[in-house]
Amino acid sequence: MLRQFIGSVIVQAPAQGLHPVGREVGQWLSAQPITDGLLTLLCRHTSASLLIQENAAPAARRDLEAYFARVAPESTDYEHDDEGPDDMPAHVRSALTQTSLSIPVSRGRLTLGMWQGIYLFEHRRQPPAREIALHLIGEPG
Amino acid sequence: MLRQFIGSVIVQAPAQGLHPVGREVGQWLSAQPITDGLLTLLCRHTSASLLIQENAAPAARRDLEAYFARVAPESTDYEHDDEGPDDMPAHVRSALTQTSLSIPVSRGRLTLGMWQGIYLFEHRRQPPAREIALHLIGEPG
Amino acid sequence: MLRQFIGSVIVQAPAQGLHPVGREVGQWLSAQPITDGLLTLLCRHTSASLLIQENAAPAARRDLEAYFARVAPESTDYEHDDEGPDDMPAHVRSALTQTSLSIPVSRGRLTLGMWQGIYLFEHRRQPPAREIALHLIGEPG
Repeated sequence: MLRQFIGSVIVQAPAQGLHPVGREVGQWLSAQPITDGLLTLLCRHTSASLLIQENAAPAARRDLEAYFARVAPESTDYEHDDEGPDDMPAHVRSALTQTSLSIPVSRGRLTLGMWQGIYLFEHRRQPPAREIALHLIGEPG
Repeated sequence: MLRQFIGSVIVQAPAQGLHPVGREVGQWLSAQPITDGLLTLLCRHTSASLLIQENAAPAARRDLEAYFARVAPESTDYEHDDEGPDDMPAHVRSALTQTSLSIPVSRGRLTLGMWQGIYLFEHRRQPPAREIALHLIGEPG
Repeated sequence: MLRQFIGSVIVQAPAQGLHPVGREVGQWLSAQPITDGLLTLLCRHTSASLLIQENAAPAARRDLEAYFARVAPESTDYEHDDEGPDDMPAHVRSALTQTSLSIPVSRGRLTLGMWQGIYLFEHRRQPPAREIALHLIGEPG
């Protein structure tokens, strides 16, 4: 019997960059009576985004952060600058990554690969709390 | 009782750039007997894409448009050029943004953040009509 | 009556670049007793990704491959380099494209546009086998 559950988690990155959210998302998932289905995440912000990436090597995450800082740098060339120099690059970096992700769930676990983790990609220098909306549809095992 | 509905909306941007489609999508959503669930959008084209972005500041959207025009410019360096100089950059800008988006729906409303809007990112200079396929699954409130 | 099915396909690209996976995904889809619903794909790797792109012109795919090779080149400037010079650019190119895609299904067919195909975007020079997790929810026609 298929059922659905809607919820959210609140996360706050300590600083700009890739902040793991798998634990919070996994805790919400474990609390739902569904073992097989589909989990969808939506980042409810335009200056932070979602990314599934390498979960083992911190250096790989630092390289990713450096890459996006380089291709979408803080700059005085943006027209929209009234929310600070880190605001417009935040929108660009969000546009280049993901706002929503959908991940199949099997036997109570996300079907991520062994080296995949879910990250909030925080693009602001003074990170506020962020909300990730969650939708789960599926059935008990 | 979970149910699903499949449909589409046709939209046509007046020009290249970010064109809001929240009204058309919202109208379709309101017409379905579902208040809680998951809405998925698929842009059925490879020279236009989807983006959830800042809905308040037009300057932020102009900066985003300028950014993508700069990193994926019209150029004579593309091998595939028989559909015009704006065609290949359109494919690249689509690849860098999104073709499908999934958004939880709660109490009849998309769970977007306060500053988020849904945009068709039109990449061609002479925009044709575009179709966004829609899938909604969920239940009445 | 809504039902769901979870599975996966294994694909192996012959080389770096855009490798069509529509046939494998379509075969899995045809084997499920669902004609209308939603198919979600998740690439279970961080050095390969998914892309819906132009299915007709091979030159357009070559241009896309060249674009990503240019904006995320192999380089000695990455801190994370112990898995070879093609590893870190692979993570970057994955971050710039998609890890998950959701596609409505209608009358037994993906609702892709006429010129859209599904591609595994293989970013490693020596491609290993890759697994794409699949989730289908829907109902018989």
